[in-house]
Amino acid sequence: MQFSLTNQFKEKLKDEIQNQNVDFIKRSFDGISYIDITELLSEFNSVDSKYVIDNIDIETSAMIISELDEDDRKNFLKIFSAKEISKFIMIIDSDDAVDILSELDEEKRDKTILEINDLEKSKNLKKLLKYDDNVAGGLMAIELVKCNINWKINQCIDLIKKQAKNVSNIYSVYVTDNKGKLLGKVSLKDIILAKDNSRIKDVYDDYIISVDANMDQEEVSQIMQKYDLTVLPVINKRGKLLGRITIDDVVDVITETAEEERQIMSGITSDVEEDDSVWELSNARLPWLIIGILGGLFGAFFLGSFENNYFKDNQIFLSLSFFIPLIMATAGNVGIQSSSIVIQSLSNPSAFESSVTNRLFKVLFVSIINGIVLSIIVYSGLILFDYLNYLDFELYSQTAIIVSISLFSIVIVSSVLGTITPIILDKLNFNPALASGPFITTTNDLIALAIYFFVALFLGGI
Amino acid sequence: MQFSLTNQFKEKLKDEIQNQNVDFIKRSFDGISYIDITELLSEFNSVDSKYVIDNIDIETSAMIISELDEDDRKNFLKIFSAKEISKFIMIIDSDDAVDILSELDEEKRDKTILEINDLEKSKNLKKLLKYDDNVAGGLMAIELVKCNINWKINQCIDLIKKQAKNVSNIYSVYVTDNKGKLLGKVSLKDIILAKDNSRIKDVYDDYIISVDANMDQEEVSQIMQKYDLTVLPVINKRGKLLGRITIDDVVDVITETAEEERQIMSGITSDVEEDDSVWELSNARLPWLIIGILGGLFGAFFLGSFENNYFKDNQIFLSLSFFIPLIMATAGNVGIQSSSIVIQSLSNPSAFESSVTNRLFKVLFVSIINGIVLSIIVYSGLILFDYLNYLDFELYSQTAIIVSISLFSIVIVSSVLGTITPIILDKLNFNPALASGPFITTTNDLIALAIYFFVALFLGGI
Repeated sequence: MQFSLTNQFKEKLKDEIQNQNVDFIKRSFDGISYIDITELLSEFNSVDSKYVIDNIDIETSAMIISELDEDDRKNFLKIFSAKEISKFIMIIDSDDAVDILSELDEEKRDKTILEINDLEKSKNLKKLLKYDDNVAGGLMAIELVKCNINWKINQCIDLIKKQAKNVSNIYSVYVTDNKGKLLGKVSLKDIILAKDNSRIKDVYDDYIISVDANMDQEEVSQIMQKYDLTVLPVINKRGKLLGRITIDDVVDVITETAEEERQIMSGITSDVEEDDSVWELSNARLPWLIIGILGGLFGAFFLGSFENNYFKDNQIFLSLSFFIPLIMATAGNVGIQSSSIVIQSLSNPSAFESSVTNRLFKVLFVSIINGIVLSIIVYSGLILFDYLNYLDFELYSQTAIIVSISLFSIVIVSSVLGTITPIILDKLNFNPALASGPFITTTNDLIALAIYFFVALFLGGI
Repeated sequence: MQFSLTNQFKEKLKDEIQNQNVDFIKRSFDGISYIDITELLSEFNSVDSKYVIDNIDIETSAMIISELDEDDRKNFLKIFSAKEISKFIMIIDSDDAVDILSELDEEKRDKTILEINDLEKSKNLKKLLKYDDNVAGGLMAIELVKCNINWKINQCIDLIKKQAKNVSNIYSVYVTDNKGKLLGKVSLKDIILAKDNSRIKDVYDDYIISVDANMDQEEVSQIMQKYDLTVLPVINKRGKLLGRITIDDVVDVITETAEEERQIMSGITSDVEEDDSVWELSNARLPWLIIGILGGLFGAFFLGSFENNYFKDNQIFLSLSFFIPLIMATAGNVGIQSSSIVIQSLSNPSAFESSVTNRLFKVLFVSIINGIVLSIIVYSGLILFDYLNYLDFELYSQTAIIVSISLFSIVIVSSVLGTITPIILDKLNFNPALASGPFITTTNDLIALAIYFFVALFLGGI
């Protein structure tokens, strides 16, 4: 049943667009999901894509426009007139319409809204445009079916029949009082099961979860996930029903959040994908690499001045320097492990959080165990190696002591830092995933280096 | 409307459980979502939780059992008899029932199935148990409403009325032929809109996306996301309708996949959470830390033998060692950036992938640009620093040349490795996110160190 996109068909379509073979285009896309057409058109240039859009039915075209990736659409719509865009806006759901409008520049946006023939629709869109992109109001569509609690089932069915064309997915009908305050819902199943002369009052379900229009989208997504909701009504402060959020928008939020987190963790600044230009890709990577380089230069100057000022015996500094990779890698691994566990519980908040102090005590325990195990491994490894190779035992056993003691301290310090940092970032309203990113890991590296050489200094190894 | 969980209520409930105050328990949980009760009970011990479960209505209890986290449930159900478990199984949807059964040990599983009074249900569950956890068949529930294409709408409505109790969320009715082959669907909306005497044949939608029971769950999740589906029917090889997957299960798959990826990227072996025991947490972290340590030890021996064999002049080796942190940090950052971009496009596959060769050429371009920029920064930084500090110019300009040339090579090598590794891992059916994890980054570190000192060797700096 699924349409299979092939390179062969892509080439054929390219040719037929050149030949202006409208018939071929209409025939090929008849009965094909707009989602497949969108994927196909993303392989074509704007002019060719517009030629296809202009020559298939307007319902499908409008859905394609609403399905497009934000960045692609912003560019693509530049070659459409305000009048053309307003025709799409008239057809698609208000949540998608608002997304499109907010991507246009102000002048074109105003023009497009003026071109909308439906006065109520344009009034509603203007209201929706005021919401921030990242809150419930920015995700909701106003298209829904609601009925008064005093109605009979038959009145409700008549309304569904009347509105069926405007509302794309109806799972349930919302129940409100005379002032529009949300009271509950009736599922379509219950409407089918109810007797014709029963009243909404008698069949509706007054247990309903709703969210305020200003709630943050990640909180909205957590609620929909927690309660396994397919649709979630949005209300204002006085409880009036404003719109509804559907699960597909929330799935997008979840996917975007995960992608954003991965990019932050790996030190890529903006939202890039593999098929962006070489220049964009390079630009997105350089800033964090430069921060890493500056950290590395700082580390080099630190090591240099340390060696100049404190190390009378080059030989010891030399053998210590062999373990810089080990120290840095462990500090990095421990820090990222710790912050990743905290980030996970921050993104799945529970009603009963343990306090920061309790968390730290636990992390301390875990890191002491890990620190002891790792230090023992390193110490025995070094002693064994020296023994087998008949090396200068005094020098190397001193190195082994310095390395294992500083390793132990670094495991503890990096664990604690890795735990506190995401909590602090979260409190300051930054994304806690930043704690696994290059800025914090660079700082972590430098702290580990400092601990290593100060331990060496205090143990008199110098 | 939402139930708010407070520590106060938690304490009160704890006391009333001790007092065996059944009345308080029944009263407190009346009208509360099973999801909130589940979250609350996760704070209690097994015996107290079972006391609550035994004293609220069985429908809610069954939903609580199905909502529990897999690990928690495995433990919790140990104190329930096969007969008690079978009562829950009878109530909940088959997909959740199978999850519960597959967590029991074989003996208890067989006993529980024997206790199920409904012969058809137990036969179906046995069938479902054969599917792997990670394929469509393992996600699907068999509860659905289907009707024959030759029926009238009225017959269909009668069926919905009869089955309404067994199927929790009905969005649409599936249409099949006489052999049970899936032909399409009718939405409840269309059923309400249709005239009483019309036939299914005339109102059903023959455009329907379905998946094979053996399709991998991640592919299932991609299809549901791509086509914004709330329910997805599952068929066998001959097209026969077997069951349906609902979006809430797929949302769980998406969240789990993201969490798994984060854990792999940060080097945590098993599925741990912050509230697991100190021992579990330590155990989950140690393996990757030890791999990092072994890598570090290997690096130390490499540096040691390099110094012993090649460096006649300690002074040069010393000044080179100051830049080990810079070299390692950059190699790590570049590698993780590259693999993260590839992992992203592997998890959002497009119909038109660019070939591996094209990808590599692009990565090569990007890394050449980045390598040049970073080398220039490091070279100028070092020369400026030496100039301002009147240092031994010849020695330091030699170091600057070695550091910047090896930095350039390392940026290119790490980019290419970071790009190829996830592609190879994916081809071998491993999780590509492993490429950002400690094993690969440790290897990357060692390669970078080797490049650094071999460049030094070849440039005659020794």
